[in-house]
Amino acid sequence: MVPRYARPAMTAIWEPEARYRIWFEIEAHATQKLGELGVVPASGAKALWDWWATNPAIDVPAIDAIEAVTKHDVIAFLDWVAQQVGPEARFMHQGMTSSDVLDTTLSVQLAQASDLLIADIDALLAAIKRRALEHKYTPTIGRSHGIHAEPTTFGKKLAEAYAEFTRCRARLVAARAEVATCAISGAVGTFANIDPSVEEYVAEKLGLEVEPVSTQVIPRDRHAMYFATLGVIASSIERLAIEIRHLQRTEVLEAEEYFSPGQKGSSAMPHKRNPILTENLTGLARMVRSAVTPALENVALWHERDISHSSVERFIGPDATITLDFALARLTGVVDKLLIYPERMQKNLDKMGGLVHSQRVLLALTQAGLERDASYRLVQRNAMKVWESDGQLSLLELLKADPEVSAVMSAAELEDKFNLDYHFKAIDTIFARVFGE
Amino acid sequence: MVPRYARPAMTAIWEPEARYRIWFEIEAHATQKLGELGVVPASGAKALWDWWATNPAIDVPAIDAIEAVTKHDVIAFLDWVAQQVGPEARFMHQGMTSSDVLDTTLSVQLAQASDLLIADIDALLAAIKRRALEHKYTPTIGRSHGIHAEPTTFGKKLAEAYAEFTRCRARLVAARAEVATCAISGAVGTFANIDPSVEEYVAEKLGLEVEPVSTQVIPRDRHAMYFATLGVIASSIERLAIEIRHLQRTEVLEAEEYFSPGQKGSSAMPHKRNPILTENLTGLARMVRSAVTPALENVALWHERDISHSSVERFIGPDATITLDFALARLTGVVDKLLIYPERMQKNLDKMGGLVHSQRVLLALTQAGLERDASYRLVQRNAMKVWESDGQLSLLELLKADPEVSAVMSAAELEDKFNLDYHFKAIDTIFARVFGE
Amino acid sequence: MVPRYARPAMTAIWEPEARYRIWFEIEAHATQKLGELGVVPASGAKALWDWWATNPAIDVPAIDAIEAVTKHDVIAFLDWVAQQVGPEARFMHQGMTSSDVLDTTLSVQLAQASDLLIADIDALLAAIKRRALEHKYTPTIGRSHGIHAEPTTFGKKLAEAYAEFTRCRARLVAARAEVATCAISGAVGTFANIDPSVEEYVAEKLGLEVEPVSTQVIPRDRHAMYFATLGVIASSIERLAIEIRHLQRTEVLEAEEYFSPGQKGSSAMPHKRNPILTENLTGLARMVRSAVTPALENVALWHERDISHSSVERFIGPDATITLDFALARLTGVVDKLLIYPERMQKNLDKMGGLVHSQRVLLALTQAGLERDASYRLVQRNAMKVWESDGQLSLLELLKADPEVSAVMSAAELEDKFNLDYHFKAIDTIFARVFGE
Amino acid sequence: MVPRYARPAMTAIWEPEARYRIWFEIEAHATQKLGELGVVPASGAKALWDWWATNPAIDVPAIDAIEAVTKHDVIAFLDWVAQQVGPEARFMHQGMTSSDVLDTTLSVQLAQASDLLIADIDALLAAIKRRALEHKYTPTIGRSHGIHAEPTTFGKKLAEAYAEFTRCRARLVAARAEVATCAISGAVGTFANIDPSVEEYVAEKLGLEVEPVSTQVIPRDRHAMYFATLGVIASSIERLAIEIRHLQRTEVLEAEEYFSPGQKGSSAMPHKRNPILTENLTGLARMVRSAVTPALENVALWHERDISHSSVERFIGPDATITLDFALARLTGVVDKLLIYPERMQKNLDKMGGLVHSQRVLLALTQAGLERDASYRLVQRNAMKVWESDGQLSLLELLKADPEVSAVMSAAELEDKFNLDYHFKAIDTIFARVFGE
Repeated sequence: MVPRYARPAMTAIWEPEARYRIWFEIEAHATQKLGELGVVPASGAKALWDWWATNPAIDVPAIDAIEAVTKHDVIAFLDWVAQQVGPEARFMHQGMTSSDVLDTTLSVQLAQASDLLIADIDALLAAIKRRALEHKYTPTIGRSHGIHAEPTTFGKKLAEAYAEFTRCRARLVAARAEVATCAISGAVGTFANIDPSVEEYVAEKLGLEVEPVSTQVIPRDRHAMYFATLGVIASSIERLAIEIRHLQRTEVLEAEEYFSPGQKGSSAMPHKRNPILTENLTGLARMVRSAVTPALENVALWHERDISHSSVERFIGPDATITLDFALARLTGVVDKLLIYPERMQKNLDKMGGLVHSQRVLLALTQAGLERDASYRLVQRNAMKVWESDGQLSLLELLKADPEVSAVMSAAELEDKFNLDYHFKAIDTIFARVFGE
Repeated sequence: MVPRYARPAMTAIWEPEARYRIWFEIEAHATQKLGELGVVPASGAKALWDWWATNPAIDVPAIDAIEAVTKHDVIAFLDWVAQQVGPEARFMHQGMTSSDVLDTTLSVQLAQASDLLIADIDALLAAIKRRALEHKYTPTIGRSHGIHAEPTTFGKKLAEAYAEFTRCRARLVAARAEVATCAISGAVGTFANIDPSVEEYVAEKLGLEVEPVSTQVIPRDRHAMYFATLGVIASSIERLAIEIRHLQRTEVLEAEEYFSPGQKGSSAMPHKRNPILTENLTGLARMVRSAVTPALENVALWHERDISHSSVERFIGPDATITLDFALARLTGVVDKLLIYPERMQKNLDKMGGLVHSQRVLLALTQAGLERDASYRLVQRNAMKVWESDGQLSLLELLKADPEVSAVMSAAELEDKFNLDYHFKAIDTIFARVFGE
Repeated sequence: MVPRYARPAMTAIWEPEARYRIWFEIEAHATQKLGELGVVPASGAKALWDWWATNPAIDVPAIDAIEAVTKHDVIAFLDWVAQQVGPEARFMHQGMTSSDVLDTTLSVQLAQASDLLIADIDALLAAIKRRALEHKYTPTIGRSHGIHAEPTTFGKKLAEAYAEFTRCRARLVAARAEVATCAISGAVGTFANIDPSVEEYVAEKLGLEVEPVSTQVIPRDRHAMYFATLGVIASSIERLAIEIRHLQRTEVLEAEEYFSPGQKGSSAMPHKRNPILTENLTGLARMVRSAVTPALENVALWHERDISHSSVERFIGPDATITLDFALARLTGVVDKLLIYPERMQKNLDKMGGLVHSQRVLLALTQAGLERDASYRLVQRNAMKVWESDGQLSLLELLKADPEVSAVMSAAELEDKFNLDYHFKAIDTIFARVFGE
Repeated sequence: MVPRYARPAMTAIWEPEARYRIWFEIEAHATQKLGELGVVPASGAKALWDWWATNPAIDVPAIDAIEAVTKHDVIAFLDWVAQQVGPEARFMHQGMTSSDVLDTTLSVQLAQASDLLIADIDALLAAIKRRALEHKYTPTIGRSHGIHAEPTTFGKKLAEAYAEFTRCRARLVAARAEVATCAISGAVGTFANIDPSVEEYVAEKLGLEVEPVSTQVIPRDRHAMYFATLGVIASSIERLAIEIRHLQRTEVLEAEEYFSPGQKGSSAMPHKRNPILTENLTGLARMVRSAVTPALENVALWHERDISHSSVERFIGPDATITLDFALARLTGVVDKLLIYPERMQKNLDKMGGLVHSQRVLLALTQAGLERDASYRLVQRNAMKVWESDGQLSLLELLKADPEVSAVMSAAELEDKFNLDYHFKAIDTIFARVFGE
């Protein structure tokens, strides 16, 4: 975790104190159910909840000190709780294994993290939608291969992002369901020393699903799927970030990240306004993605478990969720305050002397009776002249002056093919598909 | 694609001929709809379908030869079709862009590949289920950290695999839906030269969903999610493969890959029976996973598209699906014919002198009134003697002879804690959860 | 391997026939040495080499047919050779294990592949150098964050690429040394049944180093380092490819991939000249890099070996080397024929109204006695006006007209700061460092 | 960075204070040289060094507070230094750009980190060597595919690790050289505002090489190579860790991690001694490797730089080096204190009824005149009986009793083939190769 790329709500989920609080709740709920089953005295859970009702502080250093001796984190925690609660605490953890607590805790944390991330995406979607509607009909050039292709609108570009993050949201909801399970099934998942109803009870209390069959641990294919999903979302962030970086290039300058008054762009070049937020997002996307491979490597644990996954998760659990949370929020800010320059978009559109209309002319010539290949070569030979003039020549004028073209199409017919609105007639349809309105 | 790791049905999806056949169908369906819309004469589609009805061979080398000149694959194909069909073919591809064809084709291929993979998983699930029911109550030692933990059954181990591949199946169905979309929206996705109804028509004919908003291409977050899902499935394959490799170790030998009579295990050591299929699956899992990162890197295409994704997909499209198909089938064969040795499992279970029951004793001592820590140390001091005897000493006998233990538990009570069935009482519950029966 | 991204010389290294030829040489050399040691009759090697001298064809299908029965590739090959050579062939492979042959063969193949790759880099370096010298003093704008920064020369940009690929070459030479080792040490690397001098003899004959200690196999950290190095080289290819893609953007257009007369850029837009080669290189770079993770995962084989690495290497051995070979050659072609537009570079340079000189002015103001912060704000307030004018205003004129500036610097002094040559005075030094001349 | 996987010396390198100290040294050395060149007054450097001689504390929060306003870290630092030193500080940073400082600082940090890592490997090598010599002739079974193969010695296994980490050391030395360069070349690497001799001067003072040609930044292929190398080293750690995990399995138990008296292996199973350190190393290896892909993705920065690499390096710079340092030290401790059980190794060796000698017998039969294939089948049919007896039958006895065998080999000749020392005769040669003594 790098503090400058972290926000407090997500970071709090991964603090030791938060973890211990979940541990306690799992243990106390389990003890409660064990009491109901008559396995332990009901007084056990009561003592735990009574103490909990006093809203006790969690003394992390004290627990750490015990762990330094026992070299076992859950045992250290249980010892510490026992010190606070007294002898009744001995009924805690009956028939459970450490992983019952640790893995179910990770489920709770990942579910909580997912809730924040889903809210992040909702905020991002709202920002994108607002800007998309604002620029629904702002003409801009569409580019393939970095080369001017045909006109589109800036709102449509944002509609693409909206659709993409809508998919990301659905994936995240599915990923949350993957990891939100509870396992309290003992040392090898046989419930030898604990009744399955304890698992069911704790699951319900924590808002989790029951893990149908666990080993000592919750199977790690779930977590692999989770982090793989975060990696896909990160890639979508990168895509929008790179789009903005392109648009802010000096020669393009169709949009810019908001630049606050006090900000210095460069120690050397005072005129510079750099797309540093979106460049940063590009890097952060790489980092979120970097969690995918170790998460995949974590799946093939040996037999009923080995603990190799644990250190990986201590890194990527916090890092991937905190970084993605930060990145989504940063991207939301970028979109929300993005400086958008329609005049410059129009200027760039006009730059190529009408070449962007060549496809329409090509079609029209074919429809006027020329063979496709002949039409193609006719358009191309004029288009090439425009291209080589760096936008000084006009495709429309050249076509009008080309006798082979004028033989099949009048000047008026040609002019009709150079109308920008022609390209935007389906924008409404697209927006209806994407925004449902 | 490595031929030895490929099966014909999956490979056929990726052959040039199969691709061209899909191209044709897309073009012909689109021309049909364009005819209905009056954009082109209805004779265009008729000519195409009439020719198609003759079940013409696809002359791949001829198309390649044209591409060598035009350096553009779709134009080469259209030229070739035009040579076969005649002048009516000029109405093909009206208002479309190459990517409309290429991307929708990839969708069809990935959907077909998914169908094969889903069938593969179904076959694997069937094999696992059969063996799981067969060994529902076959006792075997559960291991954590590679160390004997508590008893479980071999059927329960397989139930874990069944549950895991059931999740993999659901993920694959979701991944199929991610990529099974149709985009026929023109050069920058604005439908400038083609009506959205053409896209809808072709989508329906091909069994795809409409892509709500495309650029020049179908957005690559879909494919990233697809290949990431294959990577997760590969990791689950690796997990089961590694389990079997462990079980086949000389010292463990609880199960073995089927060894055919003529097979030579080693050029040097004629006695060897190596788990080469599952080792191979471990490597194949690495390869399927290796598609994930490039697929994630493919998402952030520039603007309305760049073509960097294309070469990646020419590799990973076939490689990941063909390899995963092969791996699933190989794993199915391994499970189906796996030699399982219950006697050896029992022998290994007995090996540790009853240490696997220590947890039960620990609990019983606590319930008999000892403090948890005292119980723990009491069990541990006897357990350590057994451990150090390499299974020669019996935990039960040592405990009976330990005065501090016998002070709180009788010999009969102790013996009761060493009953194997105690561990299997929830197996039915687990099987009901997993197999629903 | 995707045929369109493969060149014959590299592909040939990975053909079955080539592999079998290396196998034979290893076996025959070993048998020769075993004959010298008196372990087998000298007639064994003689029979082998006599047959080899007839330049026999390798009947790959026949060997495959034997393998289909034995399920063991080396045994199948030995059987086939024995069929050709007769009873004397029984002295082959004495004391060796399959991996002695397989692993040493892979070493030979990777060494051969490295030689081709080194030659590829040499060709690339030559092309870069030629173009760098050609454009040593061609002014162009340097960009950070995609934003105009300060002037540089196009030759200097290419010098950067030259230095980078010089490093890549050195890395490749080191990587070649990593994998060019010979192991003939028996089933677990103890030389139990074969004298170490056989290994030394074969190593020398094949131009390899002796592997100091092997298990059953050559340790895979060597191969991991090899493929990791290829991944780094691929990333350098991507860097230069992306630079060219940026330069070819419609709005920048400072350079273009060579466009052959017959080529069609797009089925829809006849005017388009797309940087498809460099986009393709971007994708190919992703693929070469995708070999790195499985190669790293191959290192931790179990004990003296497991065979999980083998399937991985059947993919990445050919794929990574063939693709990298193709990519290096393609990049060389791109650089060699790159269309470079100095006029457009100048035009872009002029575009920002002299903002690129702001750093010099800032320094001069500081040296003229203003505090750094004051200088900064003085330059910035004028620079911002230029920036917002989209290059219509001139920084030089604004500064001349700014009374706070003219208070400390005369118009002539200011003009002196806008001299382009000022930026190029160290180009010679840089070229001397990079090209050593 | 996860504190429990971090050691102080490595962590200190990445603390803000350490970074600022390097920044100061770079700035002060540069100012010194600029003074010598007459670009700024010599009083500038003097003021800086005089202040530095007072051993001033670095007020990180104060610098952070300035950065919160300027949003630029280097400017914030320069402002803070100026506040401490006074007006003479204005001569700092003349002609430099932020990246000159930042990148050269990263070089220093990575060089320092490398020095610690090299020392770590030296310590690991020493531990491995000590144990290898100790167990040079301790017999143990060599395993391929997890199956008993032929005898080897435990010392030879460790010699393999020694050779592997010797290679890792050499790679790390090379990787250090890759990143230990100094760039002070201005905004786009042209030295427009600063003389190349400043770079040379600072490089020498910091013990770095001059970067022959930089852009605004040091090219990132260097760092990619660096982190790729760390990934390879991590994989070698994983390999040795997995070996130990295998050896500690209940059924194998040839070695164990040291188990301290107070340690509790499991909250549930008091008898358990789990190889948690090596399992942890397996996970840490995954994490170090996870830095490789983002480092490779960092190479293709746009033009003269974009800042996407920066956030990646804020993570992986500390994380990969700190984690690898911790892992190397942990592995050293594991090796150093590893409990090694020669008796158990012998017991396992004896387990297979002499099957491990089958290769020798095979050879002897061939040398006695049988054809290879016949010999193979003869050995195999007896070996299979032994195998199926689970070690109860003896291969030697079966062979003696096999009339086809006794027809060509006497009982005494057969017995001679079952001598363990036969396998160890090259151990000396191997040790001489590996340890050079």
